[in-house]
Amino acid sequence: MKNYLSKYFSKPILFIGLCISPILVSASDPLPSWRDGAAKQSIVDFVKDTTRKGSPDFVPVAERVAVFDNDGTLWSEQPMYFQAFFIFDRIKELASEHPEWKTKEPFASVLRGDAKAALAGGEHALMEMAMATHAGMSAEEFEGIVRDWTRTAKHPETGRLFTEMVYQPMLEVLDYLRANGYKTYIVSGGGIEFMRPWTEAVYGIPPEQVVGSSIKTKFEMRDGVPVLMRLPELNFIDDKEGKPVGINQHIGRRPVAAFGNSDGDLQMLQWTAAGKGRRFALYVHHTDAEREWAYDRKSHIGQLGQGLDEANANGWTVVDMKKDWKVIYPAVDK
Amino acid sequence: MKNYLSKYFSKPILFIGLCISPILVSASDPLPSWRDGAAKQSIVDFVKDTTRKGSPDFVPVAERVAVFDNDGTLWSEQPMYFQAFFIFDRIKELASEHPEWKTKEPFASVLRGDAKAALAGGEHALMEMAMATHAGMSAEEFEGIVRDWTRTAKHPETGRLFTEMVYQPMLEVLDYLRANGYKTYIVSGGGIEFMRPWTEAVYGIPPEQVVGSSIKTKFEMRDGVPVLMRLPELNFIDDKEGKPVGINQHIGRRPVAAFGNSDGDLQMLQWTAAGKGRRFALYVHHTDAEREWAYDRKSHIGQLGQGLDEANANGWTVVDMKKDWKVIYPAVDK
Repeated sequence: MKNYLSKYFSKPILFIGLCISPILVSASDPLPSWRDGAAKQSIVDFVKDTTRKGSPDFVPVAERVAVFDNDGTLWSEQPMYFQAFFIFDRIKELASEHPEWKTKEPFASVLRGDAKAALAGGEHALMEMAMATHAGMSAEEFEGIVRDWTRTAKHPETGRLFTEMVYQPMLEVLDYLRANGYKTYIVSGGGIEFMRPWTEAVYGIPPEQVVGSSIKTKFEMRDGVPVLMRLPELNFIDDKEGKPVGINQHIGRRPVAAFGNSDGDLQMLQWTAAGKGRRFALYVHHTDAEREWAYDRKSHIGQLGQGLDEANANGWTVVDMKKDWKVIYPAVDK
Repeated sequence: MKNYLSKYFSKPILFIGLCISPILVSASDPLPSWRDGAAKQSIVDFVKDTTRKGSPDFVPVAERVAVFDNDGTLWSEQPMYFQAFFIFDRIKELASEHPEWKTKEPFASVLRGDAKAALAGGEHALMEMAMATHAGMSAEEFEGIVRDWTRTAKHPETGRLFTEMVYQPMLEVLDYLRANGYKTYIVSGGGIEFMRPWTEAVYGIPPEQVVGSSIKTKFEMRDGVPVLMRLPELNFIDDKEGKPVGINQHIGRRPVAAFGNSDGDLQMLQWTAAGKGRRFALYVHHTDAEREWAYDRKSHIGQLGQGLDEANANGWTVVDMKKDWKVIYPAVDK
């Protein structure tokens, strides 16, 4: 797929015909969507070695913690983070309450349908839009908004629900780890409350096992009812050096396995790999321009350069999406 | 017991003879240390009603979340928070590296053995001492320091290890809830990293289910090894209005049951009780001056006034420690 970022709002939605055959799951193969090869073998070896009684690499069940980045590791992240689609949709929905947005950047660009211009201000612009659209309501109200959006919003290029653009091979890894006593966590730069409403249904990961970026909330009484109000104030950025900090804060244990796809995940992989005993670190390398997107060192999103170098130097697993994965997304009824 | 705060450092350690008989656990009674009465019955009714299939109050297993304050709810908190004993011991240990403490308050008072004077500065003084003793090392080093301290430090009045001053009846509540599919969490104003090293062994509560106050940490490379360094900078205070915020941040679900003992737990109980469907809120009321301590509305620690009023108005369970509990602490070999 090409990167349609600049055309997102003006071009018709492409409805790509999906011809994914049902995957035959074999009892003996926990990872049926993975082609045989070094990447698949490294996962199977790690799980067997850390869970087999008497193994020198055995890890007690209580310590079996596996952490997964979300954007680009469990679901796609092109042509922009899916949460940015959510932010843009929220801006359009709230526009009537904010007449000033017609002339105020970056909001004006969003309303004109020019995503590229809207994002030209970089992180600062994105943060400003996130604050304007993610705060001012209670935590429960926000949860409802996210739920409604994920049930209906579709990706402009695939025509799929965003939650249908998760990676089938990674769903199998999550299941496989859990079947072997691992607790699976998300540790993402994305918003913690943007993920929690749907991660349990989509990934089997409950809200208490989601770590992410957050804004502050404030407990208060509204008409005699206690509510948590969402404030337009940053609380924590769960990216890069923030990931091990978030892991420590939420989990309080060093993970045994970590899965990422970008340089933003590097510190999480370093932190995991530096633990005593057997550890596992894996990078998903986006190499499939046909079925997904191909990008790494020079990408405007999900950049992977230093991470790739460290993975090669340290013998971490690097997944070649094009070669290692039989399918990308799960089969869905269309 | 009387309040020996001002004499803590000067008086000899009292070695109270403990004559607690082993508790006979009956298969039919999940709470053998509780005397029959309204408090005990309310716990049993709640658990049965929310876990029996077909019950109108049934709660799915994934949503069975119970939160417990720590100081004064799961273990004692007199004559001062046990973490304050830890802070004082740390100050004495670090004094040789800080000659300026000899004349600098509140450190000078601690070194003179005058706990009352050291704490006279209130929360500000306590925070200053916490920062000076809880920061400047890696997260793992701090964990080791806490572990060593809990293995050896003893309460000046009971002669028990602090971790032996947990409430036997509450240990039974924790076990009973977990046996019925509840996930048990600590939500405490105490330091999250001060609790995590021992809560699993003492309460059966793993580190990832401990929520507490925290200082900031920073990921960095130290001689090529990634470490999380503890900074003398406040991150979060998990008390009062902060408790529902901490619950939302860590758990992302509203609890079904909440247990506290002070006005600092009130918002947590309100937040829990305001959820839809059957909820449970309980206050431990310290009424036993013989076996523990008796205090409520006018206490300098663990003050319980507004909470008691709301409990009575809302029909929350109030435990009368003297009447409702057959024993306070677990039997230990002396």
